Amino acid sequence: MKSIVVKPPASGFELKDVQIHEDNGIRVKILENGICGTDREIVNGQLKSASMPSGYDFLVLGHEAVGQIMEDGNGFKKGEIVMPVNRRGCGKCLNCMLGRPDYCDTGDFLEAGIKGMHGFMREYIYDQPEFLVRVPEDIRNIAIMAQPLSDLEKSLEEVFAVQQRLYWKCRDGTYDCKNAVVIGSGAIGILFSLLLRSRGFNVTVVNRRSASTQELLIFREAGLQYFNSSNGFEELGEMKKFDLAIEASGSDAGILQDILPLLGNNAALGLFGFMRSGTAGLTHEALQDVVYRSIAIVGLINGQKPHFEQAMKDLVSWKHMWPETSGSFITGTINADDIERNRDVLFRKKPGEIKTKIIWQ
Amino acid sequence: MKSIVVKPPASGFELKDVQIHEDNGIRVKILENGICGTDREIVNGQLKSASMPSGYDFLVLGHEAVGQIMEDGNGFKKGEIVMPVNRRGCGKCLNCMLGRPDYCDTGDFLEAGIKGMHGFMREYIYDQPEFLVRVPEDIRNIAIMAQPLSDLEKSLEEVFAVQQRLYWKCRDGTYDCKNAVVIGSGAIGILFSLLLRSRGFNVTVVNRRSASTQELLIFREAGLQYFNSSNGFEELGEMKKFDLAIEASGSDAGILQDILPLLGNNAALGLFGFMRSGTAGLTHEALQDVVYRSIAIVGLINGQKPHFEQAMKDLVSWKHMWPETSGSFITGTINADDIERNRDVLFRKKPGEIKTKIIWQ
Amino acid sequence: MKSIVVKPPASGFELKDVQIHEDNGIRVKILENGICGTDREIVNGQLKSASMPSGYDFLVLGHEAVGQIMEDGNGFKKGEIVMPVNRRGCGKCLNCMLGRPDYCDTGDFLEAGIKGMHGFMREYIYDQPEFLVRVPEDIRNIAIMAQPLSDLEKSLEEVFAVQQRLYWKCRDGTYDCKNAVVIGSGAIGILFSLLLRSRGFNVTVVNRRSASTQELLIFREAGLQYFNSSNGFEELGEMKKFDLAIEASGSDAGILQDILPLLGNNAALGLFGFMRSGTAGLTHEALQDVVYRSIAIVGLINGQKPHFEQAMKDLVSWKHMWPETSGSFITGTINADDIERNRDVLFRKKPGEIKTKIIWQ
Amino acid sequence: MKSIVVKPPASGFELKDVQIHEDNGIRVKILENGICGTDREIVNGQLKSASMPSGYDFLVLGHEAVGQIMEDGNGFKKGEIVMPVNRRGCGKCLNCMLGRPDYCDTGDFLEAGIKGMHGFMREYIYDQPEFLVRVPEDIRNIAIMAQPLSDLEKSLEEVFAVQQRLYWKCRDGTYDCKNAVVIGSGAIGILFSLLLRSRGFNVTVVNRRSASTQELLIFREAGLQYFNSSNGFEELGEMKKFDLAIEASGSDAGILQDILPLLGNNAALGLFGFMRSGTAGLTHEALQDVVYRSIAIVGLINGQKPHFEQAMKDLVSWKHMWPETSGSFITGTINADDIERNRDVLFRKKPGEIKTKIIWQ
Repeated sequence: MKSIVVKPPASGFELKDVQIHEDNGIRVKILENGICGTDREIVNGQLKSASMPSGYDFLVLGHEAVGQIMEDGNGFKKGEIVMPVNRRGCGKCLNCMLGRPDYCDTGDFLEAGIKGMHGFMREYIYDQPEFLVRVPEDIRNIAIMAQPLSDLEKSLEEVFAVQQRLYWKCRDGTYDCKNAVVIGSGAIGILFSLLLRSRGFNVTVVNRRSASTQELLIFREAGLQYFNSSNGFEELGEMKKFDLAIEASGSDAGILQDILPLLGNNAALGLFGFMRSGTAGLTHEALQDVVYRSIAIVGLINGQKPHFEQAMKDLVSWKHMWPETSGSFITGTINADDIERNRDVLFRKKPGEIKTKIIWQ
Repeated sequence: MKSIVVKPPASGFELKDVQIHEDNGIRVKILENGICGTDREIVNGQLKSASMPSGYDFLVLGHEAVGQIMEDGNGFKKGEIVMPVNRRGCGKCLNCMLGRPDYCDTGDFLEAGIKGMHGFMREYIYDQPEFLVRVPEDIRNIAIMAQPLSDLEKSLEEVFAVQQRLYWKCRDGTYDCKNAVVIGSGAIGILFSLLLRSRGFNVTVVNRRSASTQELLIFREAGLQYFNSSNGFEELGEMKKFDLAIEASGSDAGILQDILPLLGNNAALGLFGFMRSGTAGLTHEALQDVVYRSIAIVGLINGQKPHFEQAMKDLVSWKHMWPETSGSFITGTINADDIERNRDVLFRKKPGEIKTKIIWQ
Repeated sequence: MKSIVVKPPASGFELKDVQIHEDNGIRVKILENGICGTDREIVNGQLKSASMPSGYDFLVLGHEAVGQIMEDGNGFKKGEIVMPVNRRGCGKCLNCMLGRPDYCDTGDFLEAGIKGMHGFMREYIYDQPEFLVRVPEDIRNIAIMAQPLSDLEKSLEEVFAVQQRLYWKCRDGTYDCKNAVVIGSGAIGILFSLLLRSRGFNVTVVNRRSASTQELLIFREAGLQYFNSSNGFEELGEMKKFDLAIEASGSDAGILQDILPLLGNNAALGLFGFMRSGTAGLTHEALQDVVYRSIAIVGLINGQKPHFEQAMKDLVSWKHMWPETSGSFITGTINADDIERNRDVLFRKKPGEIKTKIIWQ
Repeated sequence: MKSIVVKPPASGFELKDVQIHEDNGIRVKILENGICGTDREIVNGQLKSASMPSGYDFLVLGHEAVGQIMEDGNGFKKGEIVMPVNRRGCGKCLNCMLGRPDYCDTGDFLEAGIKGMHGFMREYIYDQPEFLVRVPEDIRNIAIMAQPLSDLEKSLEEVFAVQQRLYWKCRDGTYDCKNAVVIGSGAIGILFSLLLRSRGFNVTVVNRRSASTQELLIFREAGLQYFNSSNGFEELGEMKKFDLAIEASGSDAGILQDILPLLGNNAALGLFGFMRSGTAGLTHEALQDVVYRSIAIVGLINGQKPHFEQAMKDLVSWKHMWPETSGSFITGTINADDIERNRDVLFRKKPGEIKTKIIWQ
């Protein structure tokens, strides 16, 4: 079948017919894929951890997909819209046995389109029912966002778990009094900000430039603040202390030096973005502060099935509470057949992109 | 009454008669105090956060004390041995209202002998019953260790809370398969190692020198491993990956660069020691690793009453399970009246010291 | 202002002009109230715990209300739609200080329209901002359901908390494999079933009659099973064992004898309905079973602000995922001015009623 | 080897030589066994769930044992004293995979000396290292108590887990303000009371007779209250409300009617004893109370390895904090060789018995 294939660690990709031996499971026709930064890293030959499935000399790309059930059975009905979960357990450790390969102890998990397992950029897949998540009809158009959002659902779940070390709610039992800052206003930064806002947090989004018109629309509708950090973070730190900071920019590691002083007592700092360069110089005074003020720093990665399910529900809410915002998620679509002619889309991100979709007919 | 007083930020101390207005509470005769690094920082004029109680031009030193109830009442009987809790809530934030000023949101907590509240190095104190913890008769001699140990009980409680983000136990429901590394073999390093060992962890103690004879005795009895890091940490990292690392050395911040590579997937790093110098240079690769491998770094500080109570129970167990070890905790005693003649004990730590006690007759 | 007032323990009610001294807070014009079983118990003089506010010889009825902010300020804008939280803390115990009077330790909480605090069936109220929950525009028409739903959100939160005693998720990390049974198909039974379904549970609704056409529509759309228990529960117990049972019928206490045999190992039984008659005869064999099979039985009551917020979000999702179902929630409306002419609506429930609303012009 | 064998459902037992095929694992010489009520139920042919291991026409009795490692290896040294864990997982469900067959979902767990697995009343056993718990030298004489105590450690862990549904600590972060009542003053009642006392609770022990001299000694030393319920529970309920009640009497089910009125708001009732007769008549008013006051009732059973480890630590503490009490645990010993001549000890409990041990030479 036609597939978008890569051969890591080589750069480049091809749309070509390949044979994949998936003999059991439910047949799912792929309707569309999302493209994300990890796909582009692989296509550019930059992701060291990318690997081909055993027994193959290629890897089908793609870990974001919306598909359609091809026949009744296994609790599904023909025609239902589903999204496959992208990480699969190692089969050995307890966390994987509990359906939580995000906490795989061995590191031997598989990841569709990335690590040892064919991805979803192809005409159809066979998959086990437990890895297919139902897509509500109401959000079919933006459902592809549920994959990246699932990572953030898991991340927020983890932050809440970590903060159970203390009493971290407001006097009315909510999170409505808590201040969060999200560094980065790309797709992840925006989604994370919306997620935090929907849980009650007062959210400040930060980027080192002024906000675009599109962003301003989103910020207004969803009630987010924006801070332009091109002149540094001092002013922000003077305005307020944050209970939660999320690094979602994936920029230079040095940004940690800017973020730590923003944190209030007992705050959590979630590291989500993969830093691409630099070194964070954390002075002993900064580290003393982490101790004296009981700060927790935690690496955040990868949602599983419960997070996909929650992401679907959030997307339904957001679509109707924040229609402008949700309407702006899909910033581009391209037919799979045209992918070779539009190679660029897999090599680099266009300015203003939130999500580009590949459509399979 | 006679008290050991300091006048931060000035260095030095005096044993002198002072008047303290504590009009209510239970009268407790102080039997002995412990001396710890914070006391010495204050005496050396190095602790910036040290402050005198409002209305006083001096601060009574001391936050580790064992005392004796002077009269029946409030649920106590004359003659009972007790230890006062040293941190007191701000009276405003929710965590303080819940008896947990270790997580004070405002930072306006008081700390006996350190911050805005007279300490316990004096003939007697008046205190509220809720701040007095009973000392089991069986461990009266080593009970002073319960104050530093309470900080570690809280710290371990916090680590367990943070790690509830995932399944972090062994296949038999215990922690017996988990590897912990404790950096530092001072009083805190030793106590933390014993605490972790008593919870099942396989513990490796690290210091940048060979172990002393006394230490070897402790390690053998309690079943701890020792690693001499004078030639770096590489060899240790090759031996095994750690599920938990505790920084208890309070040395140069750069040690973080050595610790991070020791950590396994989903590990926790607890920062307990106050780093005195240097800067940790965390590369973007190191930070990527924190993300990819779901590592949590958390500042650990200050036990409250439940932790003092747990510390007492652990000391009773340890005394009988590890008699040699427990017998080596008290490395020196000095009469309060002699303190001026033995000024040095409050200015600097002697080699091999675990705990030096001041005795009040 | 015009209000619907009662004088417990007397039966009856009046629509009349009364003076209420609420001098501070935000002015909120009441748009509509919901009527629930508790209102009817008060009007029928059957609720022993009903009491008038101190200083008044009447009680304004009503604990379900949707209103509109009358002026800018306190974080609200004129025109915003809000719902007031109905239970208020005792001001003394820790749970109330944490915004959780559902777990009030003293029992001295207040409850609008029920216990010591005027309710919301009146032209306007003054209230504190922390007790007002925003209503998304999208669900304004069905928002009144958020009050009863908030109780169920809290209940489910409590069930999840209780079940943290063990590992209670499926192999894929969700609740999709768990079987729940809800006894009762009134407003509460339906809402609880929908809530459980939206969290993944396979839900069986039980009533001792065949389902109505309207109910069948809801069950089909939301994917609920129905069981007619008019011939007993044996057949149901043979079909499957349940991981969770919710008593939402408020019928005879004897129903407990029917429910316990339905439970599987480690199951939870939530008691939500207030049983009106009878006695449950639990044999020693039944109680042995509770022990041998680690069953938890827990009383469920009363949602607070975080649960109102969650209820709003769920209603938005449900409206679009289950449009037929959501469209059937409001089964009747009546103008407040007509309430005297339609007295019956406050005295007894009509067959097929899910929610009757009172509208204030 | 010589073993005490039974043939359920037949009553009676024999001391005889039998062949048991345990080919791998660590060889452990049995030093002593404890006798408990379950053993006596089996010997009297009253335990319906008792069953022989597959392939055998007998069952070796005994689930409480202290033994000695026979050779170095598997992390153990020859001569170490150990206790085997008695319940073994079904190998299929998640809770068993997590080392928690106390929450076995399938019910197919094995239980040494009781259900499908040979017990420990024999000269030696072979067992896997993960099922052997180290016995501290200091408590070798009373270590047999760790098996029943492990069940209570698990039970208390479960109660704490269930009560995490609300804030259930005191203002000082401890449990020192909480009132617990334990129904029954047999071995289980006493151990549970000591356990709760050691965690801070104010404990009232209840039995329907006056306390024995031995009991009074224990109550005085450990600071327990005693209440004689021979004239009913009314007086107790008037004295105070309880935050926690533990049913440890295993008496008539009707006792539930007496216990429920003792409970305060948000209380937990743990059912530990297996009720032998009768029916609890719970009126609808009593059940309304469970709802209105958020009461949780939970079945408590069976400790696993982490609870055995905790039990060992508690026994060390108790031995030294409550020497009289700990010294009274062992109320009788009998040589295994004499068991036939002293048959009675396996058929019925002597008055005043806390624990009778069988010694293997």
